[in-house]
Amino acid sequence: MNRAELFSQIQKKSSFLCVGLDPDLAKIPSHLKNEADPIYSFCKQIIEETADFAVAYKPNIAFFEALGPKGWETLQKVLECMPKDVFSIADAKRGDIGNTSKLYAKAFFESMDFDSITVAPYMGKDSVTPFLEFDNKWVILLALTSNIGSQDFQLIEDANGKPLFKSVLEKSQEWGTPDNLMYVVGATRGELIGEVRKSAPDHFFLVPGVGAQGGSLSEVAKYGMNSTCGLLVNSSRGIIYASTEKDFAKVARQEAKKLQIEMKDLMDQYL
Amino acid sequence: MNRAELFSQIQKKSSFLCVGLDPDLAKIPSHLKNEADPIYSFCKQIIEETADFAVAYKPNIAFFEALGPKGWETLQKVLECMPKDVFSIADAKRGDIGNTSKLYAKAFFESMDFDSITVAPYMGKDSVTPFLEFDNKWVILLALTSNIGSQDFQLIEDANGKPLFKSVLEKSQEWGTPDNLMYVVGATRGELIGEVRKSAPDHFFLVPGVGAQGGSLSEVAKYGMNSTCGLLVNSSRGIIYASTEKDFAKVARQEAKKLQIEMKDLMDQYL
Repeated sequence: MNRAELFSQIQKKSSFLCVGLDPDLAKIPSHLKNEADPIYSFCKQIIEETADFAVAYKPNIAFFEALGPKGWETLQKVLECMPKDVFSIADAKRGDIGNTSKLYAKAFFESMDFDSITVAPYMGKDSVTPFLEFDNKWVILLALTSNIGSQDFQLIEDANGKPLFKSVLEKSQEWGTPDNLMYVVGATRGELIGEVRKSAPDHFFLVPGVGAQGGSLSEVAKYGMNSTCGLLVNSSRGIIYASTEKDFAKVARQEAKKLQIEMKDLMDQYL
Repeated sequence: MNRAELFSQIQKKSSFLCVGLDPDLAKIPSHLKNEADPIYSFCKQIIEETADFAVAYKPNIAFFEALGPKGWETLQKVLECMPKDVFSIADAKRGDIGNTSKLYAKAFFESMDFDSITVAPYMGKDSVTPFLEFDNKWVILLALTSNIGSQDFQLIEDANGKPLFKSVLEKSQEWGTPDNLMYVVGATRGELIGEVRKSAPDHFFLVPGVGAQGGSLSEVAKYGMNSTCGLLVNSSRGIIYASTEKDFAKVARQEAKKLQIEMKDLMDQYL
């Protein structure tokens, strides 16, 4: 999916919602556990019920990887049951030396057909660029994450007072463009999203940390929205585990719809 | 495997060689391609022939992941065919927020039984510590890598002139000890290994970049060895693809033996 198509979906659904799929056997409704592939059934129903309000889905690869070889079959099935007009994100946080990153890229972009993958920047250019060599595929590079540990290294300032996350933003714009490179920007710090937006005015940001992790959607929109929206705001647990009863998918739909309504207001206000 | 056991193996074999398993269908000997699982056959024969000279094996997870669900079954079989007295490294470069890292840890330490996993530091403490909560399991944290891109961020100096990789070394020593934390330290820059050794006198270093990537073994030993060796030096392509004919495993054995003989000399000199 290219940038124009993504923005078109955002406008069509009046939503920039990404639903994070973190399917944990210990947390999914117990009635699903008798099914042949409970994780698949769970994800499929979540996707079906929320697709009117979400423009992107983000399977967290760890949750599938933890299930062994079968988990990868499940992941493939989950990817295939997504509507064709949504943007798919493999939240894998991969990154290794060139020839190895190329294999990760093939795994997620060729063997599977994800639109994008999250990538860690620590190893620099040759760990990132192999992912950028696929038409209409995207790297979503970690810039400023929403977890506590983000403060350990991402905020370290260089001799000129530039924090590491800004170096990542600046340097990586030599490798990719707003048409194949997005950034992960945590929502727990609204004013910092504004900082990031200054460094990357045209790029899309994938914003985790709204909901369970405590970020505010209106702050994100205020500081982060650009003329093509430029935001994909993720909610995982707040949607997929809103109910753990038989009605889980319907309740997920309601929660997604709530966020979409908020998003529509914010798009009317800032877009 | 604990640190004493690892050092004991190093002494027993007079070797600190790690064999990197990067099994690429396009590169393995063609006669293997008729076998039911060519990648497994390749790795198994490499392991069998080199085990006298290697103390560790490092499957590069991307090469297995790129094969889809079947690749994970192959990885499990490869892990199981390693002798019990070698140190196994899942070269996966994982790292995500706490609850997700915990799942990656379970995947590699419980579902599979790797001794260690390589982890990327960018997301900080809560992305690393979940891997440190397993008895006799190890994190091998990226500090200073051997690829060109290592210069993009790892060498950025803070206001006090401290490069990022040193901040990673210092901060992470608050999270783990020399008994559960190692570092990836690239071999392409001997003098920098000495710098890292000053910051982490007791920790083991996993040193890639000897051989195909151009590092010098004697420089690594000179700058990096400590009183319990403190080094695992990896060679991948230089061993596993030394021959692509039917004799590949025997030639791999010869290459591993050559390195082991060099290593014995260096251990005699510096240990």
